[in-house]
Amino acid sequence: MGLDVFFAKEFPDPEQHLLAHYRIESDEPIERAAMKIAAEESIGTWTEVKTTTTRVRRDLAAKVYNVKGRMASIAFPIELFDVQIGGIPSILSIVAGNLFGLRALRAVRLMDLEFPPDVVSHFKGPKFGVEGVRRMLGTGRDRRPHLGTIVKPKVGLTPRETAKVAYEAALGGVDMIKDDETLVNQKFCPLWDRLHEVMEALDKATGETGRKIFYALNITTGADRITDVAEKALENGANMLMVDIITAGFPSLQALAEDPSIDVPLHAHRAMHAAMTRNREHGIHMNVLAKLARLAGADQLHTGTAAGKMGEENEVAEISRINEMLRAPMNGLKPVLPAASGGIHPGLVPENVEALGRDIVLNAGGGIHGHPRGTRAGARAMRQAIDAHMMGASLSDYAEKHVELREALQLWGTRQDYRYA
Amino acid sequence: MGLDVFFAKEFPDPEQHLLAHYRIESDEPIERAAMKIAAEESIGTWTEVKTTTTRVRRDLAAKVYNVKGRMASIAFPIELFDVQIGGIPSILSIVAGNLFGLRALRAVRLMDLEFPPDVVSHFKGPKFGVEGVRRMLGTGRDRRPHLGTIVKPKVGLTPRETAKVAYEAALGGVDMIKDDETLVNQKFCPLWDRLHEVMEALDKATGETGRKIFYALNITTGADRITDVAEKALENGANMLMVDIITAGFPSLQALAEDPSIDVPLHAHRAMHAAMTRNREHGIHMNVLAKLARLAGADQLHTGTAAGKMGEENEVAEISRINEMLRAPMNGLKPVLPAASGGIHPGLVPENVEALGRDIVLNAGGGIHGHPRGTRAGARAMRQAIDAHMMGASLSDYAEKHVELREALQLWGTRQDYRYA
Repeated sequence: MGLDVFFAKEFPDPEQHLLAHYRIESDEPIERAAMKIAAEESIGTWTEVKTTTTRVRRDLAAKVYNVKGRMASIAFPIELFDVQIGGIPSILSIVAGNLFGLRALRAVRLMDLEFPPDVVSHFKGPKFGVEGVRRMLGTGRDRRPHLGTIVKPKVGLTPRETAKVAYEAALGGVDMIKDDETLVNQKFCPLWDRLHEVMEALDKATGETGRKIFYALNITTGADRITDVAEKALENGANMLMVDIITAGFPSLQALAEDPSIDVPLHAHRAMHAAMTRNREHGIHMNVLAKLARLAGADQLHTGTAAGKMGEENEVAEISRINEMLRAPMNGLKPVLPAASGGIHPGLVPENVEALGRDIVLNAGGGIHGHPRGTRAGARAMRQAIDAHMMGASLSDYAEKHVELREALQLWGTRQDYRYA
Repeated sequence: MGLDVFFAKEFPDPEQHLLAHYRIESDEPIERAAMKIAAEESIGTWTEVKTTTTRVRRDLAAKVYNVKGRMASIAFPIELFDVQIGGIPSILSIVAGNLFGLRALRAVRLMDLEFPPDVVSHFKGPKFGVEGVRRMLGTGRDRRPHLGTIVKPKVGLTPRETAKVAYEAALGGVDMIKDDETLVNQKFCPLWDRLHEVMEALDKATGETGRKIFYALNITTGADRITDVAEKALENGANMLMVDIITAGFPSLQALAEDPSIDVPLHAHRAMHAAMTRNREHGIHMNVLAKLARLAGADQLHTGTAAGKMGEENEVAEISRINEMLRAPMNGLKPVLPAASGGIHPGLVPENVEALGRDIVLNAGGGIHGHPRGTRAGARAMRQAIDAHMMGASLSDYAEKHVELREALQLWGTRQDYRYA
């Protein structure tokens, strides 16, 4: 069996193949390097084996079907995938598995995946999606961006202190409050006490404002335990759940999304993603993780900010494309609401909404709790910035009659500020 | 709160801190860049927040305590970690989370972790470990390397064809047979049929040879389902289970390891690891994944080969150090048996055993099934190479009286050969 088994003579049927696009660095011709990926991830190994059959060679070889510059596209026959037991881990072990270690490549980045409908149909995707979450918040008509806050400091507050911050943020106008990703069930802030205190505070805030406010409780844990934790959280009033999909694995999110008794939106965080996504030559593009998160059932997913403490300057167009992709048709799966988080403050609102769209959650942590007059004023300033942008007013004009926004702009300006980032 | 909160004036108490070592590329001084990691992953954000308390600042700041060249060490107070619900995902979200995306860094690699005993004590680790697996195979005294094979072709054989390959390998002398990582429950080879056929074939082989042979059935799936699949597998005769720990997440392995009814060794594969581990400037070193795999309960773990189709030439010393680390004391956890896999054939046995030690599984796929006279002869040739090395004989001398080894050496020589790699 020569390497030529792994080259397609014609364009593959996208109903019968999962298409994967790689950027390759190699001392060999890219076509040849790509055929080695196709071999390693389907039926080949480094030497000829006596155990291969004609049927295997004919039906199961992955094939390179397009090479342009350093980009190569490979079609994986649908028969290679086991979505029943293996699921997303099994998909990853094929399109994003051993290939990253192959010596024939100096570096390789999985840029994108295109799933055949038969694979997608095994997944339920988001339960609520963009419209579901908007309906719950009553923003289906005005289509404004949602405002979220991460309780700060990231860790260390007691449940009561956390609830106080949440209450202030709620009165200031946020639509959702979330735990930071490093907070789960530490002794200084046990999960159940925190949930109890925060929901009590938010019930009070809803009573005073008439507005629903989500609290994304971080219950990141293994899929073996997460539905139990989630069910207990729902019994205790939780109205949104947060899962870190890279550190815990996609199955943790999927287990929640596919459990009919978990009837609240799921907020997906992606801590550790940049260990794989940041290097532009090697690893996995966020495109891929975002599509898998949608399959697994994220109602909201962090995708980055147009200006903030994370990531690269030239990433903005890429994030915008990822956000479009999350809202694009995908075999009937609901669209995902992207969350922009990390370094956001009122002065950055117009830039972010213009680049990333209005179907978005703008998450501000420091940009709310760092306001000179504290959390409530900080949340007001963010809402004022959103309102200004929705009305087509400039922030500076709007700030003339809105003191909280004016104070925020005085402190942070309209540019990114990275004391710690 | 200035950045100086995140610098330690004295060496941290290793009982009270998790110590993390990073290699950093930054335009800023390394010390300052490292303090930004400590801030982001403990109590800081990009701006001063009004919600921080004195207690938080005093007790929960992570601190940089050592900087040498581009290496920086950070001590994370033990209170930051939630091993009860959050577990390994929660540890990762702190020491390997958002920091990879920080703009202040051009690149960052998490090189190693040192766990305080209090964290380790929450984990059970391997059930069997090196001595447990050796005892089951009766190799506790002669201490020879174990011989494993991956059924090839990677995918496509029917259950009966798979069982035939397994039987031939068993008669040739392998100690274990494993599925390839891309095979779980595809239609061409359903999991339960495969298990049934292979165990029947291995029972026959054991009857003929008197030797126990393991079959590592790949049941990689989410932690929510893996114990059910595992229990059904044990009822149907499975004697070893395989899990892919990066694609499925560490919780899948841990769920098996902590279930008292799963009384067989666990073989941990690491497909996708090289998306994070291969780049030497950015990502996560295999050291870290290996320690987490030990915490999670791997009895066997892939760590690489001294010569093979995967990885970099200069990796050998590193792999050797990882293997030593897996066998080193770790707060009472059992040692893990490393598996060397990818491109191994008889001619590479001495080099691998010398570099990686005798407490190892040598996994040969193509290097067995590619033998000119097929699988049984290929397995014999590998065993002969191991026997020769254990006796201190050179392969070429030993091959004079051992025809299978001679044929293998004629085909592949004593060097690496990478037709597809």
